[in-house]
Amino acid sequence: MRMYDIIEKKRDGYVLTAEEINFFINGFSTGNIPDYQASALLMAIYLRGMTEDEIFNLTGAMIHSGEIFNLSSIPGIKFDKHSTGGVGDKTTLIVAPVAAACGVPIVKLSGKGLGHTGGTIDKLNSIPGFNSNLTIDQIISNVRKIGLSISTQTGNITPADKKVYALRDVTATSDCIPLIASSIMSKKIATGSDVIVLDVKTGSGALTKSIDDSIKLAKLMVGIGRKFSKKTVAFITEMDNPLGYSIGNSLEIIEAIETLKGRGPKDLLDISIVISSKILELAGKGNPEHCTDLAVNSIKNGTALNKFAELISIQGGNRDVIYDYSLFGESKLQHEVTSDATGYISSYNTKLIGIAAMILGAGRETEDSLIDNNAGIILKAKVGDFVTKGDTLATFYSDSENKLIESNSIFKKSILYSSEKPVIKPLIHSFID
Amino acid sequence: MRMYDIIEKKRDGYVLTAEEINFFINGFSTGNIPDYQASALLMAIYLRGMTEDEIFNLTGAMIHSGEIFNLSSIPGIKFDKHSTGGVGDKTTLIVAPVAAACGVPIVKLSGKGLGHTGGTIDKLNSIPGFNSNLTIDQIISNVRKIGLSISTQTGNITPADKKVYALRDVTATSDCIPLIASSIMSKKIATGSDVIVLDVKTGSGALTKSIDDSIKLAKLMVGIGRKFSKKTVAFITEMDNPLGYSIGNSLEIIEAIETLKGRGPKDLLDISIVISSKILELAGKGNPEHCTDLAVNSIKNGTALNKFAELISIQGGNRDVIYDYSLFGESKLQHEVTSDATGYISSYNTKLIGIAAMILGAGRETEDSLIDNNAGIILKAKVGDFVTKGDTLATFYSDSENKLIESNSIFKKSILYSSEKPVIKPLIHSFID
Repeated sequence: MRMYDIIEKKRDGYVLTAEEINFFINGFSTGNIPDYQASALLMAIYLRGMTEDEIFNLTGAMIHSGEIFNLSSIPGIKFDKHSTGGVGDKTTLIVAPVAAACGVPIVKLSGKGLGHTGGTIDKLNSIPGFNSNLTIDQIISNVRKIGLSISTQTGNITPADKKVYALRDVTATSDCIPLIASSIMSKKIATGSDVIVLDVKTGSGALTKSIDDSIKLAKLMVGIGRKFSKKTVAFITEMDNPLGYSIGNSLEIIEAIETLKGRGPKDLLDISIVISSKILELAGKGNPEHCTDLAVNSIKNGTALNKFAELISIQGGNRDVIYDYSLFGESKLQHEVTSDATGYISSYNTKLIGIAAMILGAGRETEDSLIDNNAGIILKAKVGDFVTKGDTLATFYSDSENKLIESNSIFKKSILYSSEKPVIKPLIHSFID
Repeated sequence: MRMYDIIEKKRDGYVLTAEEINFFINGFSTGNIPDYQASALLMAIYLRGMTEDEIFNLTGAMIHSGEIFNLSSIPGIKFDKHSTGGVGDKTTLIVAPVAAACGVPIVKLSGKGLGHTGGTIDKLNSIPGFNSNLTIDQIISNVRKIGLSISTQTGNITPADKKVYALRDVTATSDCIPLIASSIMSKKIATGSDVIVLDVKTGSGALTKSIDDSIKLAKLMVGIGRKFSKKTVAFITEMDNPLGYSIGNSLEIIEAIETLKGRGPKDLLDISIVISSKILELAGKGNPEHCTDLAVNSIKNGTALNKFAELISIQGGNRDVIYDYSLFGESKLQHEVTSDATGYISSYNTKLIGIAAMILGAGRETEDSLIDNNAGIILKAKVGDFVTKGDTLATFYSDSENKLIESNSIFKKSILYSSEKPVIKPLIHSFID
């Protein structure tokens, strides 16, 4: 078998066999197939597509390129939750403690944020002392104790995916649904949870901008889960508007804590309850209405907040942040961004808002960029709100005047005004199982 | 400017600007753009195509990546002749001395053969003592003396093309018309001749298998020539049948000499006269009929053969080979390949015949393969001939029994028989100027 023939076959639109896909993934992982042949194949896949069977085989090859975790020593059905990434998306920080507080074990492994979307791990790392680097033994031990763990990718999980992902990132082959689906699902499956709950964001701030693409991606991932005997469900949720009001690491932790205290923004609370109650339902905790009650009550009675505090403690963080936000520290500079017009905010380009927050210091432009824990944006107005010229639209937090200026100009480009109240899209577009 | 954005733009089917193409070619030549980004772009070009302007810009960028020869010290209009490569194609070895014998200076730089097609240089190198490695000063001096030079690529001509070509060769992006056209024409233009005569082969043994693709390639190359102020013309000629009867290096030199002696096979003679007389016409030697007479006469009166002898001498070879073929030496083994059926030969897969010859030792499978000067095939039957089971179809020459066996089985696969006499395609399909 020759890599050249595999490239040529895909280039001409033919379907690759399982053997050919394994040959590629094994050869590329071991360094026998050079980058330049891999990137030619990835571009051919990008432009020619892949069948479901090819995607299943690609996912399988990546799963078997590394370790596969065995979580069977944790009693019960283990859940993993994954978001395809959004702006201000701190849902996991609410869903995970709510579900765990209701008795469902959550084992969440999460990557670092890159580009305009934040990462759950970066957010948690803004808590003084919090350790997100756990071994698989620590993860299992923590989940056995408190029913919850959130940590970075550990061990040698899907090394082939890491290599393919890095190459896609520099060869303009990232936003390709077959490659996205197999990359996400190979990691989730190798991590060993029994049920995978996906939140596929859709809109200007999401990986998939159109509803059609988001549904395609969601269906594909659910199909991959089924193929590998993992119960998988997916929500398609709105990302034409940042979620909640806060964007940035400590800012989002504070908003998540506020939500766990019952004082969070409605969109964030609603989506967190819907996803949590689906997890409870899949865990056999009762009918949908009952599960929604359980989730709502875990916030009302403080058990979810308490679970979050336990998570912070067991991973070495200072749980006092929950009652004293000053422990996060604060940005050197603040800047009020005001409206240039009077009218309804008819749309935000959410990706630009994510980039504005990244520039302030909340995110990484490249793998090596340093994060400023307290940098970011607190919005005062969202899509559908009426504003008068000069009103504050947002407060920016940063440590540099230049970043504030650059970020401000990008943020301004993200806003469209209208004289009529815009139609607000539903928060949850659909559910796929 | 970022290579990533250039890849993305072509991936999405947009037209690249001259600046973007220059950025790619300069960056890739200097090593600032890595192979894996270049190959992703090449695959995107393969699948998305290029406009004429993009192809002109790509050609220009490759021309300016290295030296551009100045042949102005040679009096008269200088001609270059290029074939896209065929099996048994020794036309250059007849056309060049015929044209030079009629007073038209020919400056031919040629690459080494690779894969199933032979290279003119490899054929000439089978002549004892022949030196195909000349400097530009030697080339100019020789053409001033005898009106003819045939040598390998010299100096630092289109180094960017060399790098791109090597990458295309291993990433299944070779048979892409915009990339073929710009690669051939950048070399031809940088070499400095005034007129470029192209022989675009079409059929199973050619780079372009269909007439449509061959015409597309020919028109594109003629257009590139015009863009760079080089008179360029192209013949589309048949390659569903090997040209002449001999395939292999010394075997083809002998057949070329026989043709220059007026005893060559009709197809080879006809095509050589047509191309030669077009060169004479373009050089202002008279009307088409007169030019044909001039070409035919140069063979009849021995001046063309004498010019070939001068070429051999001036490049250090032993001109006695012209009258004593034993000076080439001979293969250790000979093998008669016989027909398995009775009927007309309705078609040859000419590429397979080229591969059979390569396996015998006449060609290179990779850049580093060694050539056996005397290995090859002499056909006894061509398409349209009637053969009886057991008749000899060809004689194979090699130094190894294993090669004979492997080659024999490939050769047999190349033949189709029929009970009716097949329609023979015209040797010259069209002419483009």
